[in-house]
Amino acid sequence: MSDVVERFAKLGVDAAPGQEAATATDTARWEGLRRGADLVGTPVDFSHGDVNAFAPPPSAIDDFTAGVREGAEQAYTTYKGRPAILEGLAEKLADFTGSPVDPASQLIITPGTQGALFLAVASCIDFGGRVAIVDPDYFANRKIVEFFDATPVYITLDYQDTSRPAALDLRQLEAAFADGVKVFLFSNPNNPTGAVYTESDIAAIAALADRYEVTVIVDQLYSRMLFPGTDFTHLRAAGIGSHRVLTALGPSKTESLSGYRLGAAFGAPELIRRMERLQAIVSLRAAGYNQAVLASWFSEPPGWMEGRIAADQRIRDGLVSTFTAAGMHVRTTEAGSYVYPQLPEMSISVGDFIALLRVQAGVVVTPGSEFTPREDRRVRLNFSQDPDAALAAAGRIVELAQCYGTT
Amino acid sequence: MSDVVERFAKLGVDAAPGQEAATATDTARWEGLRRGADLVGTPVDFSHGDVNAFAPPPSAIDDFTAGVREGAEQAYTTYKGRPAILEGLAEKLADFTGSPVDPASQLIITPGTQGALFLAVASCIDFGGRVAIVDPDYFANRKIVEFFDATPVYITLDYQDTSRPAALDLRQLEAAFADGVKVFLFSNPNNPTGAVYTESDIAAIAALADRYEVTVIVDQLYSRMLFPGTDFTHLRAAGIGSHRVLTALGPSKTESLSGYRLGAAFGAPELIRRMERLQAIVSLRAAGYNQAVLASWFSEPPGWMEGRIAADQRIRDGLVSTFTAAGMHVRTTEAGSYVYPQLPEMSISVGDFIALLRVQAGVVVTPGSEFTPREDRRVRLNFSQDPDAALAAAGRIVELAQCYGTT
Repeated sequence: MSDVVERFAKLGVDAAPGQEAATATDTARWEGLRRGADLVGTPVDFSHGDVNAFAPPPSAIDDFTAGVREGAEQAYTTYKGRPAILEGLAEKLADFTGSPVDPASQLIITPGTQGALFLAVASCIDFGGRVAIVDPDYFANRKIVEFFDATPVYITLDYQDTSRPAALDLRQLEAAFADGVKVFLFSNPNNPTGAVYTESDIAAIAALADRYEVTVIVDQLYSRMLFPGTDFTHLRAAGIGSHRVLTALGPSKTESLSGYRLGAAFGAPELIRRMERLQAIVSLRAAGYNQAVLASWFSEPPGWMEGRIAADQRIRDGLVSTFTAAGMHVRTTEAGSYVYPQLPEMSISVGDFIALLRVQAGVVVTPGSEFTPREDRRVRLNFSQDPDAALAAAGRIVELAQCYGTT
Repeated sequence: MSDVVERFAKLGVDAAPGQEAATATDTARWEGLRRGADLVGTPVDFSHGDVNAFAPPPSAIDDFTAGVREGAEQAYTTYKGRPAILEGLAEKLADFTGSPVDPASQLIITPGTQGALFLAVASCIDFGGRVAIVDPDYFANRKIVEFFDATPVYITLDYQDTSRPAALDLRQLEAAFADGVKVFLFSNPNNPTGAVYTESDIAAIAALADRYEVTVIVDQLYSRMLFPGTDFTHLRAAGIGSHRVLTALGPSKTESLSGYRLGAAFGAPELIRRMERLQAIVSLRAAGYNQAVLASWFSEPPGWMEGRIAADQRIRDGLVSTFTAAGMHVRTTEAGSYVYPQLPEMSISVGDFIALLRVQAGVVVTPGSEFTPREDRRVRLNFSQDPDAALAAAGRIVELAQCYGTT
């Protein structure tokens, strides 16, 4: 029997993206540490993308209001989602990933991609068991595993050498599988580094999962937003048994539809069946009217996605130049909207620096401690922001880090 | 360590409200059992209310689109909900329940009342522990408990004697508490019976919870919709320690806003704190734009709620008369939109009757087996429907039950 108090003690939320406003209260401490003047500029919250700078596709609100007008049929869908919407979506997801999706048995609509991840992990985890997750990776992966009294088994992703593709430690992965770990959870593109797994790593994951009969949950939230030169391999189309792979995806990031809380999971029928049962007691369904917004997903106006990627690329390049010029190690994002630069050595902790950055410079970033169990000095920035404001804010990060430097 | 397969085997969903369309496939079996002609009439789905018959307050869609126009601030709220919305809502909930609600520490906005219940139970349950729940009660209560490998301890609600108020078996409740059960979960008004707990039963629950240091989660989803002559006692205002009671409420039913998936939980600060942490990994937040719709909750146009109740009361009275005249035992609903009549003895099982009722008469009801672990012949009907269609459908239930009668 587990103890609920102990379980929640591990489930921190104060440093999680989007929570900064709720926790910025330790004013006296920061006043004591503070050095130098305020750095004035447009405030930027890099903990998530700015849907004012990158608006949702224009049809979203029209699809929503049409759903409301339609009434009962759209308000009360089955727990997996409205069948007509599942059918349209299955076809698009099959086209996108290069492998079939049966709308009746292989797809569920969820409250955001977060909802898909929670239901997916909860549907294949043994309480008290073990789950392989990547270091570094999305902050919720570890937290979901620990909430179910399970133990994360960390597999290293080497992303530091920017001269070559990021590489998963496949020997660690096989050792974990050989030792009896039956679930593997990872994001591709990797969050927070923006690295994309190579075709050969994805093929190796598929082969190992089949050999050791492991269930793999892959969060491909940013897989539509590939910068030029990036090839993306969909795990579900890489030869892995279709009953053991589940893909999570959603329109919250690239498509700026986060305010609608929509996501999808597709693949392994037995997992989908369990997720439906669990959704019935977790939140019943993704909000019915909101599901109507999925009509325009993967059907954006011509040029919309290309324009989105080109705009993000310019911001990415500006930020990477700024951090590199300041001697801060950073990998150039291959896909998605995150950079994960390393702060220089400073006379204060990373946590205090992040707080002072918010107080003194109006800039919010997410600490690396959300993504890795190791000590490091990295911070994650979502660069889907107003371009000028983002670049100026990156300059303030560099300036404030120098202000608190050890030299 | 628990086994995930075993855990999901208990988590049935096929007979749950709203799932009928997904599971109505066993045609051959019903053709074999079928007796008599089809009963023609407007199809009625009694498994949930009809938002076409009872539309949401007109301002809902305007509040939503204003939220979308506002953009980032409304899209990305903290996990508990947007602070300005929490403040307004806390005041209304305090007024309604007669006990203060601190918006900063005692309130969380959730994806529906279902979301509130799941987070609440998950926040105080020991995996493998025991939770007291009422028999009969809302179907998800048992399922949430069992999903966490915990054991339901059933407390009987006596609602059969329609000449007096329903009564909870307080000796069973005290025995469970004395035996170490530390969590009690119940709905008031009771779902599925429509009974309201007496002031003295609520006072006794409060006193027992305090004496045995039990956490109580009370689902008051239908507590605004009281038919004339019904007094409602809010547990949180009944003298119980404010740190041990959590109330769940939402605008999905009475206010017909189910398509927006909004709910709230308020009370015990430590539970709210845990629920926030858990929401961060379950679905992040109730959909941001949707939260804007809460502005009009408890602020409906003058006369709106009175009109809603009067209309529902007429349907209730029609249904109760129909079932009573046919000799089917039924309690007159005191609050909410459910009746829970008992079917007569029949030559086929209740499950088969429910399937044939759908196939032969176009009427969907929810079996009593969703609400009680005991064998009975009851079915639940949500009577927020088109009045004429509902009354005609009740007639078809009676007629078809007679058609399959034992005599």
